[in-house]
Amino acid sequence: MAQEASAGARARGGAREDSWGSVAPEAARRLLVAAVDAFAERGFHATTTRDIAGRAGMSPAALYIHFRTKEELLFQISRVGHERSVRLLTEAAAGPGGHADRLAAAVRTFVRWHAEHHTTARVVQYELSALGEEHYAEIVGLRRRSEDVMRTLLADGAAAGEFDVADARGTALAVLSLCVDVARWFTPGGRRTPDEIGAFYAELALRMVGVRR
Amino acid sequence: MAQEASAGARARGGAREDSWGSVAPEAARRLLVAAVDAFAERGFHATTTRDIAGRAGMSPAALYIHFRTKEELLFQISRVGHERSVRLLTEAAAGPGGHADRLAAAVRTFVRWHAEHHTTARVVQYELSALGEEHYAEIVGLRRRSEDVMRTLLADGAAAGEFDVADARGTALAVLSLCVDVARWFTPGGRRTPDEIGAFYAELALRMVGVRR
Repeated sequence: MAQEASAGARARGGAREDSWGSVAPEAARRLLVAAVDAFAERGFHATTTRDIAGRAGMSPAALYIHFRTKEELLFQISRVGHERSVRLLTEAAAGPGGHADRLAAAVRTFVRWHAEHHTTARVVQYELSALGEEHYAEIVGLRRRSEDVMRTLLADGAAAGEFDVADARGTALAVLSLCVDVARWFTPGGRRTPDEIGAFYAELALRMVGVRR
Repeated sequence: MAQEASAGARARGGAREDSWGSVAPEAARRLLVAAVDAFAERGFHATTTRDIAGRAGMSPAALYIHFRTKEELLFQISRVGHERSVRLLTEAAAGPGGHADRLAAAVRTFVRWHAEHHTTARVVQYELSALGEEHYAEIVGLRRRSEDVMRTLLADGAAAGEFDVADARGTALAVLSLCVDVARWFTPGGRRTPDEIGAFYAELALRMVGVRR
């Protein structure tokens, strides 16, 4: 159902449409956008497939062509959201520069994603327990990849003498947690843009690993 | 409906019962505990007052003696939860020692609360938008008090030369955000206890304000 977004769509980032730019066909994309809005507004359990189809301007029968159940919609939202954010994090962590540069880039990118896609991120985080067992396990696997990327970066930076980190796992979880929580409090049009929050949080993350610059 | 917990109940902390120890009468307390569980499991909008009364072993009519609406239950959960966490934060921030000691104590206490009361904290954070306008404003006022306490502590510490903080407001929000997000990922019986997470996060918060010890 989903295919990779073009490099161009990835590079543009940020705009709402791009969240689901990789999803085809168009009807499935519209249903996912409608489901995110419905889940964000009323919660997973209070939302019906009829609500979602209605928001997408479609009939319930048309919805079932693309998604077998409401849970399948939630899973695809979670999967696409996690895959996107894991990929952005991984690319930034493997980018140019020393460990500090790469940590800063990873945090900037991860924060920006959570600010720009705060509605999706909230649904993904708050409705996790509504996923079926297999789907839940698949999402947990994607989350572990984010944790692994960050932990490895911190452990490598410490081994290279760039970072002062005694507990790479705990510190990695804390840095990711700080980034994820941006989705909870971020309001568009607030005091700072996603870019500004990303830059500020990159400096805070560097301090957390013992780098001051 | 609610009255202050005894100093003894506060000092014990942690245990589930104590979350609502300040609420009287007993029937109202049972309804709040039931409402937290129902909201956490199914979300606010998918929960009925009948569900809540049933969980508390009471009739819907008995519920209405204590709470006029489902929203009133959510508001009392939010109010009691916020008042408790704001008070703990304020007391710790005003405690003995220098600014670094007080920041460490404030973070330890705030983190511990969010770990121990993670179910309540999740309901409070994720269902905020379901509150009516006046109730929402009252909760926002309580949140501002937490932010003020933390911002003042960081600004005072910077003025005293103990902290290296350029943006006290932004840093305060980030430190509180890190603490609040513990409620999202904390699992009882996990790798670390609430106390251990609190101690670890206190060191991370000190690093965020430019203190290494």
